[in-house]
Amino acid sequence: MCIGFNRPTKKNAITGEMYRTLSAALKEASADSTVRAVLIHGTSDATGGTFTAGNDLADFLNLPQGEEPAALAFLPVLAGFDKPLVAAVDGLAVGIGTTLLLHCDFVYCTPATKLSLPFINLGLVPEAASTYLLARLAGYPAAAELLMLGEPFGAERAKGLGLVSAIVAPEVLMETALATAAKLAQKPPAAMRLTKALIKRSFADAVREALTAESAAFGGQMRSPEAKEAMTAFFEKRKPDFSRFS
Amino acid sequence: MCIGFNRPTKKNAITGEMYRTLSAALKEASADSTVRAVLIHGTSDATGGTFTAGNDLADFLNLPQGEEPAALAFLPVLAGFDKPLVAAVDGLAVGIGTTLLLHCDFVYCTPATKLSLPFINLGLVPEAASTYLLARLAGYPAAAELLMLGEPFGAERAKGLGLVSAIVAPEVLMETALATAAKLAQKPPAAMRLTKALIKRSFADAVREALTAESAAFGGQMRSPEAKEAMTAFFEKRKPDFSRFS
Amino acid sequence: MCIGFNRPTKKNAITGEMYRTLSAALKEASADSTVRAVLIHGTSDATGGTFTAGNDLADFLNLPQGEEPAALAFLPVLAGFDKPLVAAVDGLAVGIGTTLLLHCDFVYCTPATKLSLPFINLGLVPEAASTYLLARLAGYPAAAELLMLGEPFGAERAKGLGLVSAIVAPEVLMETALATAAKLAQKPPAAMRLTKALIKRSFADAVREALTAESAAFGGQMRSPEAKEAMTAFFEKRKPDFSRFS
Repeated sequence: MCIGFNRPTKKNAITGEMYRTLSAALKEASADSTVRAVLIHGTSDATGGTFTAGNDLADFLNLPQGEEPAALAFLPVLAGFDKPLVAAVDGLAVGIGTTLLLHCDFVYCTPATKLSLPFINLGLVPEAASTYLLARLAGYPAAAELLMLGEPFGAERAKGLGLVSAIVAPEVLMETALATAAKLAQKPPAAMRLTKALIKRSFADAVREALTAESAAFGGQMRSPEAKEAMTAFFEKRKPDFSRFS
Repeated sequence: MCIGFNRPTKKNAITGEMYRTLSAALKEASADSTVRAVLIHGTSDATGGTFTAGNDLADFLNLPQGEEPAALAFLPVLAGFDKPLVAAVDGLAVGIGTTLLLHCDFVYCTPATKLSLPFINLGLVPEAASTYLLARLAGYPAAAELLMLGEPFGAERAKGLGLVSAIVAPEVLMETALATAAKLAQKPPAAMRLTKALIKRSFADAVREALTAESAAFGGQMRSPEAKEAMTAFFEKRKPDFSRFS
Repeated sequence: MCIGFNRPTKKNAITGEMYRTLSAALKEASADSTVRAVLIHGTSDATGGTFTAGNDLADFLNLPQGEEPAALAFLPVLAGFDKPLVAAVDGLAVGIGTTLLLHCDFVYCTPATKLSLPFINLGLVPEAASTYLLARLAGYPAAAELLMLGEPFGAERAKGLGLVSAIVAPEVLMETALATAAKLAQKPPAAMRLTKALIKRSFADAVREALTAESAAFGGQMRSPEAKEAMTAFFEKRKPDFSRFS
């Protein structure tokens, strides 16, 4: 099964509706015994590819009071998905566009891929259990750097962190990812599910706990004066000033 | 103390008897205060070296009904071994030939070393706590790749994963491993045992839990139609077809 | 806030008094809302830089009977420090000079940096939760090698282990570390503290347990015949002989 982001006019920014579609697709893939692997990808046009610019900020800010962001319901579905998950990534992979890769089994990207975890710059905290998974994957100092500075990073750095399986040219990105998905689909399916479950078994609880702790902190920060200053500065195209906060 | 696989006509494939000998040797090494380090190695002849082709498949299939594979009793002895363990690896290191290295303190191999974790291709699941240890060592995506695809990999890749201490030429493999064992043997023995115990302390429970979970899954898969199809195809020298399983 | 080791005549070896000063400085930095990041550094003169030669051995041996080494009270303060911590390291970083880096968020060092974890050679065991943190960061085999052999290693190796953020020339070491500290100081402070707390959350218990287990083992080894032989040999400038111990 292929799942593609397809909202190119907004750099594939993910709305609440899109999160719900993603969750439904993963649940269907899990339930359908003929689906042996899932490939998730972005869009590409003459100017290059885009994975996703992350959470749609406007959609996020327009969330009715008391309603939970749809991303929160999607993350446990993604973390618990029980079949092989392959990602083909080109261009922008911002925020959840990077953190969702921590839940994939194979990640192919191109030299032009630009990842980032800019939560701190918005006065927010990371999500998708990335505070746990990134430190586990790449070590504490690398996680601290990427999450405390929030600066973009490229495909080579991501490969060095262990986040990316291989960097390939954009013209063979989809065929490379599809070839791996096809190989995975030809393996014995019960042994495959058991293998994935066994690898994830030891840290499934830690992922759930991280999701819970991050959600709580995220909810608090969303309504903080810091986040308001960050958003206001963003829309006013000025540098935010956090010197008066503590 | 040196422990060598020595069944070159069968590429050092490990029988039940050999597992029992390995366990006894490690227990003796632990009990004998004059033993300060253990070196485990394969064989070499004019055509090159062999570490081990892994579990002896015939021995394994002939296991009397209700009897536990001898590997299951060996693994906790290996995981709990309390003195420095050095491995010298050349040529084939298949299945447990690769996973047992995850329990060694120093692993030297040669450019010709060929590792593999082919459990999935036999309709089986990984063992020796490799589902836990490999993800902990090399990160989730690397563990997923090696355990879900089951493709062989070389010394350079193994070194990149952190599994291998150094790659050396075959003619100096044994002397390199012996030199490290000799250095270790000259260290204060109680501080050495405490240091190893302290490093392993934080994940000893996780290793035990992984061994238990893998054993349970392994037992189920061993008798599965998938595994039967894989074995039959292997003996019939055809490609297995798992498309009818779910 | 900058914290500098400044005892160049003793290669910045850390006395009990210096540990107490370090603890007080970190507590003050945590309590003072105008402090947004802390930089820890060594000294440099015409012959080059020195981070620290580690625990002052004489001070340590003169510890009154029944009194706890001051390092033991410092380590939980360091491990629990809640704001960004940047280290600028040049020259010697011995023992705790290396292990304290495992608690920093950013570590800059120079090509001449010489790290070491020589605990085993003194008949002692590692501290500062390094038995846990080093294996978590760099994998079990790397931790086993560095802690069981106790041999010095350089900046490149440390960077490969993930311990070092970047290697820079000595003449730009301080400005590089200060630039990062300045960037961190301009981020939203509450989101910063939450981000650091979230990354550390999943292993804070493991760090505390490692500190406790290491302290107990350290206390026992300090008074062991092995440690006595190691110290005596050190002061007699001869090679220690541990062959009669078990």
